Amino acid sequence: MKANNPRLTSWIPVPENSDFPIQNIPFGVAKFGKKTFVATRIGNTIIDLHKIAKLGYFDVDAEVFNSQKLNKMMLLGKLFTRQVRNEISDIFNSENKEAQANAKIQEALYSVDEVVMLMPVRVGDYTDFYSSEQHAYNVGCMFRDPNNALLPNWKYIPVGYHGRSSSIVVSGTPIHRPKGQQKPNDNEPPVFGPCKLLDFELEMAFVTYKGKPLGKSISTKEAEDYIFGMCLFNDWSARDIQKWEYVPLGPFLAKNFASSISPWIVTLDALEPFRVAGPVQDPKVFEYLEYEGNKHIDIKLQVAIQPEKTTEKVVSNSNYKYMYWNMNQQLAHHTINGCNINAGDMMASGTISGNDENAYGSMLEISWKGTKSVKMNDGTERKFIQDNDTVIMRGYAEKDGVRVGFGEVVTKVLA
Amino acid sequence: MKANNPRLTSWIPVPENSDFPIQNIPFGVAKFGKKTFVATRIGNTIIDLHKIAKLGYFDVDAEVFNSQKLNKMMLLGKLFTRQVRNEISDIFNSENKEAQANAKIQEALYSVDEVVMLMPVRVGDYTDFYSSEQHAYNVGCMFRDPNNALLPNWKYIPVGYHGRSSSIVVSGTPIHRPKGQQKPNDNEPPVFGPCKLLDFELEMAFVTYKGKPLGKSISTKEAEDYIFGMCLFNDWSARDIQKWEYVPLGPFLAKNFASSISPWIVTLDALEPFRVAGPVQDPKVFEYLEYEGNKHIDIKLQVAIQPEKTTEKVVSNSNYKYMYWNMNQQLAHHTINGCNINAGDMMASGTISGNDENAYGSMLEISWKGTKSVKMNDGTERKFIQDNDTVIMRGYAEKDGVRVGFGEVVTKVLA
Repeated sequence: MKANNPRLTSWIPVPENSDFPIQNIPFGVAKFGKKTFVATRIGNTIIDLHKIAKLGYFDVDAEVFNSQKLNKMMLLGKLFTRQVRNEISDIFNSENKEAQANAKIQEALYSVDEVVMLMPVRVGDYTDFYSSEQHAYNVGCMFRDPNNALLPNWKYIPVGYHGRSSSIVVSGTPIHRPKGQQKPNDNEPPVFGPCKLLDFELEMAFVTYKGKPLGKSISTKEAEDYIFGMCLFNDWSARDIQKWEYVPLGPFLAKNFASSISPWIVTLDALEPFRVAGPVQDPKVFEYLEYEGNKHIDIKLQVAIQPEKTTEKVVSNSNYKYMYWNMNQQLAHHTINGCNINAGDMMASGTISGNDENAYGSMLEISWKGTKSVKMNDGTERKFIQDNDTVIMRGYAEKDGVRVGFGEVVTKVLA
Repeated sequence: MKANNPRLTSWIPVPENSDFPIQNIPFGVAKFGKKTFVATRIGNTIIDLHKIAKLGYFDVDAEVFNSQKLNKMMLLGKLFTRQVRNEISDIFNSENKEAQANAKIQEALYSVDEVVMLMPVRVGDYTDFYSSEQHAYNVGCMFRDPNNALLPNWKYIPVGYHGRSSSIVVSGTPIHRPKGQQKPNDNEPPVFGPCKLLDFELEMAFVTYKGKPLGKSISTKEAEDYIFGMCLFNDWSARDIQKWEYVPLGPFLAKNFASSISPWIVTLDALEPFRVAGPVQDPKVFEYLEYEGNKHIDIKLQVAIQPEKTTEKVVSNSNYKYMYWNMNQQLAHHTINGCNINAGDMMASGTISGNDENAYGSMLEISWKGTKSVKMNDGTERKFIQDNDTVIMRGYAEKDGVRVGFGEVVTKVLA
């Protein structure tokens, strides 16, 4: 991918440690005044791709970028996205003095402070996997048997379940603490009220292109042709509601009150340089889950909690490479029964926890079921998330001096 | 509702035992030649509502009915649907000789054989409840303990889970037997192959209007303002895949390969005359689940299996009134945590089983986990659904000589 060349620089300034060098070129939807458009970002500059398209650069009807969602663009498929990304790379690279001097191109640029980032995708179906071994192990230890922490199906199946797409919101959207039924005491009837054990889950999600017709499967080898890109995903969870409701059909109200995503979809192409090997899978997986090559990705992930009146406190440093099942396997599994996928479907990883305690991806694990607490910078303590806390997730990959990142997903919890 | 008047008759012929008298006026999407339009049906006549709207009857831009889905119309809300239904009732009732003589109106009529019915709704999120007590009891008896068949949360929570919307198909669409992992022997590793225990689930679903913003709840009292109408729903289930995958996060590939619906959405208004009281709920439910009045509906339901080379065999006669939790409670529960709903969301009932063995709504229950079989008319036996079998579900309500029905959902299973 020529757009990935680590030697490229842009004539748009890119601050040190920016997640958005010219090697990234993510896609999102921005609003400037009353106009909403498909956008990309270099450094702290937002680029209106509708305006760029109207200059004839992308060899497609510019209306594709005159949209409130990326879905229309995604319907044109992976090769189109790749072409657009390469074209953007050409326009904005340092050697293109002509583009830099082009007033029409300059008119398509905004400062990041001038625009509001919107929900980038109209999500059709949303699926949440459960693919980090350490997370599944931790949950098994806490709620079942430490000696048999992983359920018997876990190493055979990339376990997943369907979630709610209507309540997926973009970074910056505050969420409300959910109400619901809980059963704090085993020997007493359930009670109703605000959730007391509100938690984040540090996840990443991928967004799909349109897949095959109902009845057809996507192999691990084909999977990447159907994946547009990735974002950070905070799978908000009400632990007390979850505990009482989830048997036998899985989490429902404990999850569907809100999930939060970062506004930029970073393409799989941009993440290609950061591929790493995954864990050895033992027992051997079924043939439809076998894969070749490096299909995991080294993405450093961080979660911080910011109480209302103090600075943030980092509570987790994890990594997307800790996944047991990779995206190729998840998508192959999801479609092995003939289930169809559409442009804009979102599939989240499940909580990403590393072996180290500092790499746990939820307060449930960090506080070990509420048995220990984390001290904030104002001296208050957290076992779970309190009203008016803001949870911030960040993620980036880095190699050969190039850092490709996701920005942040920032969410304040209202009472 | 004046359109419900049992004395009304239509100048369009309505055969005896038709599900579609002038008191029904359901909504669907039909295709005639290359044109797709929003339609209703009286007797065996399909009415092109786009053409009727262009005559100025509905006081709205006719383009609302020039659509491949009902969603655009649903966005106009309940009062608009009600107005349209009353208007159609006026145009087609026997006393309206003028309309009958109007050539423009006659041009909007097609025979049911001339059109193809399409998927009526673009489903946003799909939720499946588990609200029939007898079904939950039967499953509990088979897989857990007959003395504690209902799980502790069942009478407190209208248990539900999220399903897959992309694979919901309309009656007439054949489905493929899914492949997947199964674990037939407890002491041996899982195997991979075509599902051996393919089952239907007799359900009904309701379709919603746009709800409140994220963070707000819909009360049981308000629920009907947000419900557009109902259809028959066959929640296809692969029992062997389900058993191996569903712990701890619920059914996934066992369900998401396909669900089948009947093509007509019968409005809640049309079903109003058939309301009946629900069961006494003990223990008392939480306040947000309390309701007043008759909120259950007496809808006779039937399932038949038709093997490839013989006549159909009826295997179940159930009724929607057997539900423990009604739609008002389901919707109030779904939103009590602030979860938002959109126009076109679909919420299914869960398998509807009556107390009587003849009223069980799945082969799992009818064959009691495969321990007994049902004889077909060609002498072959069924414990589950075989390749090339066609499953047919029907439903109608009847009172005061008026029968309001759903037609059929007919689905052939391919190898």
